[in-house]
Amino acid sequence: MKFELTREYLDELRQAIDAKDKKKTIAMLQDFHPADIVEVYEELDIEEAQFVFVLLEPTLAADVLVELEEDDRERLLANVPGDVLARKFIDRMDSDDAADIIAELPESLKAEVLSNIADREHAGDIADLLAYDEDSAGGLMAKEMITVNENWTTSTCLRELRIQAQDIDEIYFVYVTDDEGLLKGTLSLKKLVLTQNEYIKEIYDKDIISVTVDTDAEEVANIMGKYDLVAIPVIDSIGRLKGPITIDDVVDVIREEAERDYQMASGISSDVEASDSIFQLLKARLPWLMIGMIGGIFGAKVIENYEQQLALYPEMAFFIPLIAAMGGNVGIQSSAIVVQALASNSMGIESNLKKLLKELGVALLNGLSLSAILLAYNLFDSNSLPLTVTVSSALLVVIIFASIFGTFVPLGLNRLKIDPALATGPFITTVNDIAGLLLYFIIGHMFYTMLM
Amino acid sequence: MKFELTREYLDELRQAIDAKDKKKTIAMLQDFHPADIVEVYEELDIEEAQFVFVLLEPTLAADVLVELEEDDRERLLANVPGDVLARKFIDRMDSDDAADIIAELPESLKAEVLSNIADREHAGDIADLLAYDEDSAGGLMAKEMITVNENWTTSTCLRELRIQAQDIDEIYFVYVTDDEGLLKGTLSLKKLVLTQNEYIKEIYDKDIISVTVDTDAEEVANIMGKYDLVAIPVIDSIGRLKGPITIDDVVDVIREEAERDYQMASGISSDVEASDSIFQLLKARLPWLMIGMIGGIFGAKVIENYEQQLALYPEMAFFIPLIAAMGGNVGIQSSAIVVQALASNSMGIESNLKKLLKELGVALLNGLSLSAILLAYNLFDSNSLPLTVTVSSALLVVIIFASIFGTFVPLGLNRLKIDPALATGPFITTVNDIAGLLLYFIIGHMFYTMLM
Repeated sequence: MKFELTREYLDELRQAIDAKDKKKTIAMLQDFHPADIVEVYEELDIEEAQFVFVLLEPTLAADVLVELEEDDRERLLANVPGDVLARKFIDRMDSDDAADIIAELPESLKAEVLSNIADREHAGDIADLLAYDEDSAGGLMAKEMITVNENWTTSTCLRELRIQAQDIDEIYFVYVTDDEGLLKGTLSLKKLVLTQNEYIKEIYDKDIISVTVDTDAEEVANIMGKYDLVAIPVIDSIGRLKGPITIDDVVDVIREEAERDYQMASGISSDVEASDSIFQLLKARLPWLMIGMIGGIFGAKVIENYEQQLALYPEMAFFIPLIAAMGGNVGIQSSAIVVQALASNSMGIESNLKKLLKELGVALLNGLSLSAILLAYNLFDSNSLPLTVTVSSALLVVIIFASIFGTFVPLGLNRLKIDPALATGPFITTVNDIAGLLLYFIIGHMFYTMLM
Repeated sequence: MKFELTREYLDELRQAIDAKDKKKTIAMLQDFHPADIVEVYEELDIEEAQFVFVLLEPTLAADVLVELEEDDRERLLANVPGDVLARKFIDRMDSDDAADIIAELPESLKAEVLSNIADREHAGDIADLLAYDEDSAGGLMAKEMITVNENWTTSTCLRELRIQAQDIDEIYFVYVTDDEGLLKGTLSLKKLVLTQNEYIKEIYDKDIISVTVDTDAEEVANIMGKYDLVAIPVIDSIGRLKGPITIDDVVDVIREEAERDYQMASGISSDVEASDSIFQLLKARLPWLMIGMIGGIFGAKVIENYEQQLALYPEMAFFIPLIAAMGGNVGIQSSAIVVQALASNSMGIESNLKKLLKELGVALLNGLSLSAILLAYNLFDSNSLPLTVTVSSALLVVIIFASIFGTFVPLGLNRLKIDPALATGPFITTVNDIAGLLLYFIIGHMFYTMLM
């Protein structure tokens, strides 16, 4: 049952596709899980993928569509008319998946697809979901769920469950509402199985953690993570139950968020993968490199100011890379710690002043240790006393500056409601590089004047 | 119901604790979710936390213990004798949580705790779990689950469910085994509710995705993510069902993995948080800075070789930071893309040669664009032709070198079974800094000899 994509399998599949051998092609695919078929798809070119796609049994094809990456899906659906899309695929999807896919379609196609969905209740659910921002709880939730009224008995409840369950893949939770549809709590299936002939209101769990439709997706992920929830109900502004969010959707949010932060810290601006095209990769990487290069040009200007000093004491150039690199490294460390604390909501309630004092303490200890080691090294290795003193003093000052700067910039961005992760990566390195050079030459000028 | 930790609340709680006012202290805490109490704990010092802990009702205290960070838990349990720990807390925990906590205890205490657990079956389950590596599927799974025999009917099954369910918090899945305990498939609760008087073997789902006890935790996370699973059964080497892993445990794995990669890329060596002590932060940061500094010293040595050239043409120093920084930036980008592809298992089946050629393509385009821009800038701004030619040529060569190096190092580490994330962050920047400087001066020496 375990699927592993091999080159041999892929070669054989490609041969079948090239030979337009429908029977063999479909036989090679139909028993796989949709997620496995997606892995195969990613290796096919668009003609091959389209040939395969029309062969798949519609329910399987609908599942594959849901699992595909957005751009692969777009290519695959490019020639599919709206009514076919609606009747053959959207009708077979859960409302949240359907809404995600329709949201990506061009405006003109959206209405056509929605009006061609056979099940009008399903169409209504999808239209409701389309109204929410995709990065909000409303955008994450599904409409499919089991709800029971608090005034029912367990036997009414079981009967009702049998009816409602037909539309649903799997039951994890039963939600309890009152006559107005307000969310009152949850009923565990365990309780339902263990209890006979009781009123729901006597046995359901009233301690319930919920979010509202406009709660930010990242906050939903933090709440579900903190309370170890497998699903969370979403309510509207007056407390009516709108639908559940299950953890598998939130896992995607967590992964995407982590990937974005990681890429930001590594100087990659948009969401790319190793398998993307050269031009997608270039688009994601060139802008940050441009920032780095402009920073380097500013750095060159700083050094140019001290050209005469360099002509006299060329040894001052030796430690330019060390000072610039250390400013960058320390700045990245400081900002990464802040960015991560903000992302995981584990900032605590320490005041910003306390945070700064702590960072200052770390910076002082880091700076003093490293400067002392460098001093010892240079006293032994270098025969220029001014250089020795300059380098160690500058290193200490640069480390302290970079720590404070690296701590404050993400905190400031966060206060301005800008993603603090922007502060990591090339931006902070570049600024710290330039500041480091400036400090180095100012200090160097001072000591060389004093000691020569 | 929504909990938000405020300074006012904390001040009030501290006053109650200082006054040894047990009634008020417990009243301020007992209605909260264990995860909220943990947030309060993180703000208390150890004496305060211990005062609160003994007041908590044992079931709540057990939940709080499970939720705490490892070092906080260690401090809190420092003075708790083994038999109290076993009877008061461990007995009330799920087997997987209990095993995690016992695994952290000193060897001598482990046996004492295990022998004092009242429920001997529970003790046996925990002892079984302790045998597995904590980063394996066995270490993640619980023993609590509902299993039914394929030869039962649905009504036997419901009866049995009522008995087994008493030990379990919540039922999401029912696993089907044969007479030998071999895993055969899953039975959805929906099917069980919808079907009456059928044999289990007629209705259960035979397409099941499982992992073995020694599957790596990260692979479990990848599999559950790929197939959108809420739980996955774990089997032993001959296919017997050992227990389920639920997604909430895997979410922790995903988060920790992402944090580790992020910290690695930012030059922070161990798992720290903004709220940790100055010395913990220092320990996590100083080692990487040392690497950076040693790299800087090597860089100084490289430049020292060209001291005479610098004395003649001090303008060569201007672009040292630009070249060094660009080498570092490009290297980090390249390695980050590889590290992420390896972590998410989305490497595809492209050969390494193809990957390298693609990376080379991106590097060439990046390098040519940036070199051209820098050439234009210097033709306009600088009056040294050799410098202008040197800087642009060196930039191109350095970008290509750093791309290849940044791609190959993580691939190589991965092949050697070393965490490829080690290749990101300060290590790759440092090596690329030095290599960049060397290339810059070699090229500079060449052009200055040719053009002056």
